[in-house]
Amino acid sequence: MNLKKLYEGKAKILLDYNQTEIIQYFKDDITAFNGEKKEKLEFKGILANGISSILFTKLRSFGVANHFISKVSPREMLCKKLKIIPLEVVVRNVVAGSLCKRIGLKNGELLNSPIVEFYYKRDDLNDPLLNKNHINTLNIIDLEDLCFIEKIALKTNTLLRSWFLSVNLSLVDIKLEFGYDYYNSIVLGDEISPDTCRLWDINSNKILDKDRFRKDLGSVIDSYIEIHNRILPLA
Amino acid sequence: MNLKKLYEGKAKILLDYNQTEIIQYFKDDITAFNGEKKEKLEFKGILANGISSILFTKLRSFGVANHFISKVSPREMLCKKLKIIPLEVVVRNVVAGSLCKRIGLKNGELLNSPIVEFYYKRDDLNDPLLNKNHINTLNIIDLEDLCFIEKIALKTNTLLRSWFLSVNLSLVDIKLEFGYDYYNSIVLGDEISPDTCRLWDINSNKILDKDRFRKDLGSVIDSYIEIHNRILPLA
Repeated sequence: MNLKKLYEGKAKILLDYNQTEIIQYFKDDITAFNGEKKEKLEFKGILANGISSILFTKLRSFGVANHFISKVSPREMLCKKLKIIPLEVVVRNVVAGSLCKRIGLKNGELLNSPIVEFYYKRDDLNDPLLNKNHINTLNIIDLEDLCFIEKIALKTNTLLRSWFLSVNLSLVDIKLEFGYDYYNSIVLGDEISPDTCRLWDINSNKILDKDRFRKDLGSVIDSYIEIHNRILPLA
Repeated sequence: MNLKKLYEGKAKILLDYNQTEIIQYFKDDITAFNGEKKEKLEFKGILANGISSILFTKLRSFGVANHFISKVSPREMLCKKLKIIPLEVVVRNVVAGSLCKRIGLKNGELLNSPIVEFYYKRDDLNDPLLNKNHINTLNIIDLEDLCFIEKIALKTNTLLRSWFLSVNLSLVDIKLEFGYDYYNSIVLGDEISPDTCRLWDINSNKILDKDRFRKDLGSVIDSYIEIHNRILPLA
């Protein structure tokens, strides 16, 4: 089948399947710092697709509506076609990344309750942090839908956190994206993988996510394989 | 009287007066970009004290509790001693400054409803934007007090905006600071002047505030005098 390319992002390609569905194709590209750092890592796409497919399936069975329909090949999943909401919704359980640099909190500190942050998906502005007044002014989404997204993001975080914990992984933080499906329902989209989650081994605190790439720690693919193997029993 | 210096900031000095009161002394220093740009402008302190004294007095008579007690000399006001809350509360009516640079909104655009922003007063971190989850995590203030501050900030903005409008000035945005007084009540502190407000002539849009200094537009003091003269009838 020769499907029309709808969009090519840094790590994925979206192909038009029919009026309500797309194929999400996972590339081997890994990028950081808004695309400034870039590499190809063999198998990364296969691993991200595998991990995401397991987690989306499990989330759906726990009542978190998402765009995943089925895994159709090692690098491809069939998904609902979404009108993407231009927000990156970050939920944090442990201090890392910009929370240290921007706000001065200590790396690795466990948060008493999760922090939710909304970033504006605008590469040209470097994805700035928004508060609810900004989101309202920018007409990105109405405040009722924003509350709903916040609730679903927290529920998703709670579920994933406990599943990861059961395989000795600490979910440090996670970036989620949402969209409206054909029937105008808000559903979780994008992917859930070590590209979009910070995951540390619960005992050694070893970093097992894209930070290995960002910080030149090496063994990036080995870590993605490790995550994949650990969550396989959850499927 | 030889009073003990409690604190020296970029534009003001706080002197210990007694257990519950301080003297706020207005210097002629004007600074921008976290102190990187700096100058002395004769009379600035006198004008900022004069303008603030008028506006604090008027706010109090409209039910906005603030630290101002009385103007005691051209450069000095007697104030309640506050335990300052380390937040800069910004209320915006018109797009300007960081709202253009950070979020991509158009300079001069009138907002449908005011935007409130909370910045963390931390020079070493360049005063980062915070959301309510950050404020909670940082233990800056409890969420009930934060709601109260937001309400008072909006009321202060509404009042000032209408008073400025009556003398043909547009209140573009304003930075407010709050603290706890001796009796643990939250009151408005700091100053209200062209150092902390963006003020544009309503007809010509001429900038009449510290942006003249930030952007090297010249006639800084003339603008401060203009603001002072326009609001004198409000006293």
